[in-house]
Amino acid sequence: MHESFLQQTIELAKKNVQTGSGGPFGAIICHNQQIISACSNRVTVDNDPTAHAEILAIREACKQLNTFQLADCVLYCSCEPCPMCLGAVYWARLKQVFFACNRYDAAQAGFDDSFIYDEIATIAEKRKITMQQVALKESLSPFIAWQEQENKMPY
Amino acid sequence: MHESFLQQTIELAKKNVQTGSGGPFGAIICHNQQIISACSNRVTVDNDPTAHAEILAIREACKQLNTFQLADCVLYCSCEPCPMCLGAVYWARLKQVFFACNRYDAAQAGFDDSFIYDEIATIAEKRKITMQQVALKESLSPFIAWQEQENKMPY
Repeated sequence: MHESFLQQTIELAKKNVQTGSGGPFGAIICHNQQIISACSNRVTVDNDPTAHAEILAIREACKQLNTFQLADCVLYCSCEPCPMCLGAVYWARLKQVFFACNRYDAAQAGFDDSFIYDEIATIAEKRKITMQQVALKESLSPFIAWQEQENKMPY
Repeated sequence: MHESFLQQTIELAKKNVQTGSGGPFGAIICHNQQIISACSNRVTVDNDPTAHAEILAIREACKQLNTFQLADCVLYCSCEPCPMCLGAVYWARLKQVFFACNRYDAAQAGFDDSFIYDEIATIAEKRKITMQQVALKESLSPFIAWQEQENKMPY
């Protein structure tokens, strides 16, 4: 069963290249073994660097199920999720992830997944993109407001 | 100048809590010291676990500049980007990132940023969310199609 859903993500990925709609990646989200969303990469056609197949599938599944968490859902992807998509998997609280290729296959095809994993493991000061904390007097005030807010919706 | 933009992200974050629109996070993207996009977290109101302030600011800036890469732009955020947003920073090829709070401040306020950083650094088999590669005979076919495609748009 897992293999059948994975096979479908590969078909999505391949078709996406053939139709010129974006990168060679597909993703499917299932709930009770039913497909809730099935998406392909749309970075270049949508001018959206976050429009990876997995991100789009998570957003679409949330819309379909009217929720911001997918605790009982399984993500299938044609390739190992990049750090952005892996982060999204955690925020969506998915149950399980299956993937066909891995980050090294993606790197061989010219994609940055493996590079970004390496960057995340590097201390901020030594990364290729400069990242710097500048603490201000009021830095923590949003968190204080959040903790004091009574009718908040945690996520 | 950096401090002024950061101060504005803190105001966005605080206001977002006060209006009940989402979590205590704000982000601004600047191009030539001009604000291109300014967003707050909208996870719960939009039912979208990917709707972090940084992701929304990147998507909006790309729309404004009609591009899928933001090489000359600077991201300011009220808190250190989580792994999802950090991944998006790399895919968008931003020039620089400044942030006011860090992942440990976020953890103290009840957010998973630091936990997700730890999970990414853990091997897949030992993560809290089960992740498993299942290689299929056709696994690499999308990448082969991509490499053979002549009119593709790399990103």
